[in-house]
Amino acid sequence: MKNQIVKPSILPGFMELLPDQQIAFNNMLDTIRRNFEKYGFLPIDTPIIEKSEILLAKGGGETEKQIYRFNKGDSDLSLRFDLTVPLARYVSQYMSSLTFPFRRYQIGKVFRGERNQKGRFREFYQCDIDIIGNGKLSVINDAEIPSIIYSTFRDLGFDSFSIHINNRKVLNGFFDYLGIADKAEVLKVIDKLDKIGFDAMKKELEDICDNGQVVGKILGFVGIEGSNKEIIEALYKLDIANEVFKEGLDELSKVVRFIELFGVPDKNCKIDLKIARGLDYYTGTVYETILDDYPSIGSVCSGGRYDNLAEYYTEQKLPGVGISIGLTRLFYQLREAGIVLDKDVNSLTQVLIVPMSEDVEYAVMTANSLRAESIITEVYMEEAKIAKKLTYANKLGIPYVILIGEEEIESKILTLKDMRAGEQKKLSLEEVIQHIKVGLK
Amino acid sequence: MKNQIVKPSILPGFMELLPDQQIAFNNMLDTIRRNFEKYGFLPIDTPIIEKSEILLAKGGGETEKQIYRFNKGDSDLSLRFDLTVPLARYVSQYMSSLTFPFRRYQIGKVFRGERNQKGRFREFYQCDIDIIGNGKLSVINDAEIPSIIYSTFRDLGFDSFSIHINNRKVLNGFFDYLGIADKAEVLKVIDKLDKIGFDAMKKELEDICDNGQVVGKILGFVGIEGSNKEIIEALYKLDIANEVFKEGLDELSKVVRFIELFGVPDKNCKIDLKIARGLDYYTGTVYETILDDYPSIGSVCSGGRYDNLAEYYTEQKLPGVGISIGLTRLFYQLREAGIVLDKDVNSLTQVLIVPMSEDVEYAVMTANSLRAESIITEVYMEEAKIAKKLTYANKLGIPYVILIGEEEIESKILTLKDMRAGEQKKLSLEEVIQHIKVGLK
Repeated sequence: MKNQIVKPSILPGFMELLPDQQIAFNNMLDTIRRNFEKYGFLPIDTPIIEKSEILLAKGGGETEKQIYRFNKGDSDLSLRFDLTVPLARYVSQYMSSLTFPFRRYQIGKVFRGERNQKGRFREFYQCDIDIIGNGKLSVINDAEIPSIIYSTFRDLGFDSFSIHINNRKVLNGFFDYLGIADKAEVLKVIDKLDKIGFDAMKKELEDICDNGQVVGKILGFVGIEGSNKEIIEALYKLDIANEVFKEGLDELSKVVRFIELFGVPDKNCKIDLKIARGLDYYTGTVYETILDDYPSIGSVCSGGRYDNLAEYYTEQKLPGVGISIGLTRLFYQLREAGIVLDKDVNSLTQVLIVPMSEDVEYAVMTANSLRAESIITEVYMEEAKIAKKLTYANKLGIPYVILIGEEEIESKILTLKDMRAGEQKKLSLEEVIQHIKVGLK
Repeated sequence: MKNQIVKPSILPGFMELLPDQQIAFNNMLDTIRRNFEKYGFLPIDTPIIEKSEILLAKGGGETEKQIYRFNKGDSDLSLRFDLTVPLARYVSQYMSSLTFPFRRYQIGKVFRGERNQKGRFREFYQCDIDIIGNGKLSVINDAEIPSIIYSTFRDLGFDSFSIHINNRKVLNGFFDYLGIADKAEVLKVIDKLDKIGFDAMKKELEDICDNGQVVGKILGFVGIEGSNKEIIEALYKLDIANEVFKEGLDELSKVVRFIELFGVPDKNCKIDLKIARGLDYYTGTVYETILDDYPSIGSVCSGGRYDNLAEYYTEQKLPGVGISIGLTRLFYQLREAGIVLDKDVNSLTQVLIVPMSEDVEYAVMTANSLRAESIITEVYMEEAKIAKKLTYANKLGIPYVILIGEEEIESKILTLKDMRAGEQKKLSLEEVIQHIKVGLK
């Protein structure tokens, strides 16, 4: 009886990688995790499926349309669409067992049924850190976050990137001071400056504000340039009579000073008065991160300060600050740009042992010895011609092959092939281990 | 305006851990992953949501009832219920890009809407390895698998565990030879021996077989005891005139010989003629792993050899051998048994820096120096009394605290508190780093 064959495929908008790409992806993920842990963030892992009433407590907007929601039995279930809502629920639920400030990281898949388009994924990894205070949280935490972004992206192999930093209170206070009614619209327009250019921005602002003097002040504000210190000075000089603006500027000033103390070079962290990061969530410091060589990718790591994490689940006030890296999209974009992959390394294996006769036993015992030395080892156990066995090592980019035939078993002298150098040596087991360890460094 | 509060909770049957437990869980997961990689397995990561027609290609049975299945737009979607079906689909889909034998590992969450009961989870981690051949696969692979189980469970901290091994062909051949019609029923009964005892088993066998001589032979077969070598010898001595039996016995004999060569001690790997692992999937070698001190947990790592991985997705014959560790359930059971957790370690952080005045700058710079030495460091940045700051370190089990007040800033001599020893020392930054590095070893 023959089975009906179903053509193997996955859904559109889902990323799946071949092993060589998966290795590169995992390296990035491990680097991010290592950095998060280095700064004392604690791991949590929330369920992928939660009650819809929890995930949709806030409700409204795109979220509700994009969410994967379904019933099972009597339960109304949804797949998480970010890691922030589950964090809010988690902190509220276990408040009495947690120690504050609560520094947590979470790395995991989230789900959004977005319209299918290139570079957008319906299932993707988010890598999040947040610091949550119980009632209050020092603004110095806002300065530590960029130092973690800096450390992480350096370890990911980037040199040229800029963390753009701003403060929502500075924007809100300034716009209030100017008497602008629709702040959201103005924010949207100035955020587009890099895309549409100065003249188009000016025109759009004039359409919204209908007041040449106000537009002039906005343009002056957006046009403030210089080092972070110079920008701060220029902002103080504006002498804006608005309490929110002043509070925001004091925060921004302190955050920028501490970012420097945390060791982040000026060239990697710049005040950018144009960024606001969405409209209703962040309340103070905001961040975006741009890869200088690939600005078109957009922000690869964003976040900010919020006054109240969990207002839908507890009456306790929980201010926090955090960031998120959308790893799936970042990986995709880097791959599209031709970086990320080491084309010749398709395996983690360091040594392939190739038996040249039917006697596999000596090969197995040799593998035991190598593995005991933490060398990642495989034995080619299938019957095949030597050429085919070597092809296996070549295809996977395994750097060393040990050939074991009757002569090697007899003499206990192994033949070590360095696949990259194309050299071959006769060595004792101890010499082989020594040679490989040095070669792998 | 006040929000309506939704009581924070998760769905029944889902595991969620506090950070201290999450650290212990992640340690286990990392240990498993490290072992899988040490043996040359390649990572893959398949989507959590797949087309229902893919996941249900085989269909029938419990799977169909338990699966989380729903529609989004026109798509009929399901959450994966194991990692084997996605592997079958993956190998079929990318066959031409993969190198065979294909050694893959995958660690991830799977979903089963099981009846809610203690110790059963609807979302749980599986940790799988499989070796897939293209057309054929040497039986020596069946012997390597137990060596990976052995290495993994040793690294997980277990000493007393036994990998039970059997071969379905031995069972099938023997029962065919006896002329037993309903082999599945007999297998179910002998699998229960440890639970129901010899007499009850004998009675049930008599009910099924209705032939005293056959029952006697089954009891004799199940009763074969001794070392692996002695059991193999006894099986050969039975001299069963059945080709399937003979083939299975030759395989079992070779596998047991190679398991020893791979360095697995006899006490950790035993032939167990009673195990069969389900009815229609495995075709040769089968494994179960029992923690000797916690036999009631049941098998913590199971698997076996199958003739054809992907018959629903390709006409290519893909034999394989693999195992799966159900980590969520294992963790839960170990925790119930009172092991797993180190109660005093609730954080990964190694040093907490506590500013004793309002001057936080020196604390931040000290943190930079420690982090540069890969010491996991936090700065307590909130305004609070010293006692509260030390409580933070105590609650999280952070082993070292560095106190920095005006005196320390002036003299550049830090106060290092060893929280475990209760000692306090005045040291330079270099001495602090040295002291902590030695202390953490």
